[in-house]
Amino acid sequence: MPIVPDFPEPGVGFRDITPLLAAPDAFRASVDRLLEACAAHPYDAIAAFDARGFLWAAPLADRTGTPLIPIRKAGKLPREAAIETYRGEYAEVRVEMHKDAVRKGDRVLLVDDVIATGESMAAGVRLVEGLGGTVAACAALLEIAALSGRDRLDGYPVVSLLGKL
Amino acid sequence: MPIVPDFPEPGVGFRDITPLLAAPDAFRASVDRLLEACAAHPYDAIAAFDARGFLWAAPLADRTGTPLIPIRKAGKLPREAAIETYRGEYAEVRVEMHKDAVRKGDRVLLVDDVIATGESMAAGVRLVEGLGGTVAACAALLEIAALSGRDRLDGYPVVSLLGKL
Repeated sequence: MPIVPDFPEPGVGFRDITPLLAAPDAFRASVDRLLEACAAHPYDAIAAFDARGFLWAAPLADRTGTPLIPIRKAGKLPREAAIETYRGEYAEVRVEMHKDAVRKGDRVLLVDDVIATGESMAAGVRLVEGLGGTVAACAALLEIAALSGRDRLDGYPVVSLLGKL
Repeated sequence: MPIVPDFPEPGVGFRDITPLLAAPDAFRASVDRLLEACAAHPYDAIAAFDARGFLWAAPLADRTGTPLIPIRKAGKLPREAAIETYRGEYAEVRVEMHKDAVRKGDRVLLVDDVIATGESMAAGVRLVEGLGGTVAACAALLEIAALSGRDRLDGYPVVSLLGKL
């Protein structure tokens, strides 16, 4: 996964997923491997983070026949939504999930492209639990271990295909 | 497709795709039908609009083994990008595509969830052609015929599964 230096701010090394998307065999293999790794954590629904999380969550939902729940940035969902905020790497972020998206007891797989600080994933956990669901696992293509995102997700299974970057 | 009145602004009827995402059989059927409808327009790559376009483009890329190119909102792509702007329904919008995403002569399928005014799709056409590619077709789940998006895409094949809404 190439790292683009100083994007979006000086000092940040940005993980560029676009070469993976451009290589169909690699993209499919990443979906295969996420599917395999998540199989140990049974789930009733997949919650996908706007926007890059959609790129992996949608094929997972398509392949498995699982309901797909978008977790969106502020103001994008048209109906009544639960709201969480977190301190992102670059700014305060508000994320939302429709209140009727999760039924009580649903086991929800959270999917994003990257786990960095873990703050966005932790906000997803709060959204799911706040609506009465349980978190099956927090899954991502890669994890930036140096940012210790796993520490913010203590007690929840974390799945990442590339964990040492 | 339910319509939520007065979102995001008074007078706008917002097409809510989330019930479709929540129904796996319906979601898969929508991917099936997009795939079938686009088969008449051979393509070498799929360009997906941030963010809801990702939800259909990613399964299409996964199923067909086709390179996937994100068209992103301003400031999201880490490397050198081509830029287009258009007058959105609610605000001026800037969209970007990595300059190395399209090779000369590539036939690119543009995928979004909804064609409304057609301005975003037309910006996608300019991005693809500006980088030396050709547009295979402009595809969307649904088209709001009353907004005449097709008129802005004159000369390009338009594929939409639900065209009379």
